[in-house]
Amino acid sequence: MRAAVRLFAAQGFDATTVQQVVEAASVTKGALYHHFGSKDDLLFEIYRSLLDRQVADLRRVLALGLDPATTVRLVLVSLVETTADSADETVVFLREAHRLGAERRAAFRAERRRYHEAFRSVVERAQAAGEFSSAVPAETVVLIALGVVNQLPTWYRPDGAKSPTRLGEEIADFVLAALRPA
Amino acid sequence: MRAAVRLFAAQGFDATTVQQVVEAASVTKGALYHHFGSKDDLLFEIYRSLLDRQVADLRRVLALGLDPATTVRLVLVSLVETTADSADETVVFLREAHRLGAERRAAFRAERRRYHEAFRSVVERAQAAGEFSSAVPAETVVLIALGVVNQLPTWYRPDGAKSPTRLGEEIADFVLAALRPA
Repeated sequence: MRAAVRLFAAQGFDATTVQQVVEAASVTKGALYHHFGSKDDLLFEIYRSLLDRQVADLRRVLALGLDPATTVRLVLVSLVETTADSADETVVFLREAHRLGAERRAAFRAERRRYHEAFRSVVERAQAAGEFSSAVPAETVVLIALGVVNQLPTWYRPDGAKSPTRLGEEIADFVLAALRPA
Repeated sequence: MRAAVRLFAAQGFDATTVQQVVEAASVTKGALYHHFGSKDDLLFEIYRSLLDRQVADLRRVLALGLDPATTVRLVLVSLVETTADSADETVVFLREAHRLGAERRAAFRAERRRYHEAFRSVVERAQAAGEFSSAVPAETVVLIALGVVNQLPTWYRPDGAKSPTRLGEEIADFVLAALRPA
């Protein structure tokens, strides 16, 4: 999967042959087809494994039962870290998701929606309790907070001056400043 | 261009033939090739015309010489409006930009960078003057403010309950709340 995502990101999904993937991964075609039925399956699993990791991170943070500001901070920092670490996966997915069948696309949308809603619940509950400002609806807050993370693969450079952790902290600072009660 | 972008968004760039575009646009192939040398040129012009419109809107707002909070609000509302109005263009571009040659991709990146920097200057000057909080670097502020707009085509539905103007206002409210000086 690592070899495939590198090739798909660098030269495109169409231009990448299964032969190139098995050579880059130093495995046999038989081994690859044992795990993945097709190149499309590989594309599906690449993105699913990233999404699974991010959902697991979110559940881990929510299970800590911390105050909403700390929860929002930990969620955003962890999400920026995994996204920065998986920029190739996200670039490939943005470009090629339309190739996946309707069923798989719907499964991803549902999973992303669950992530979005779990995050939104944290904001909503804190707004209801007066711990966060209610000036902007929680739905829009989450679209803003996740928007910058989802866009990150289009501008993030691993050799940049700012670490993903630092960047996540700045995004969290900004979001929490906007949510500070009047 | 409108006919082409609808077809590219609905069925993909590869699956769309020049014949389908001329039929949908009710023009002749000769007329199309008079304006666009190839299907790739059409893709280039579709995105360039959107970017040109957004840059013109930004310049118009900046030329008004208003206070930074009003400037940020007008920029964001106008950007959300044109982006919502051009969701197909953006979806097609996100998916197919890698097909454009290196020179054209670089031209787009430079133009988007100029937009980003003009917006960042507004934030930086207001931070230096103490009109905006300096808690988060202007660069990150702009990545957050533009991130949600750039992601909009992935979730925006023209038949949704919220108008683009209302959505732009909410995003501006959030960004300006975060930038309020302590």
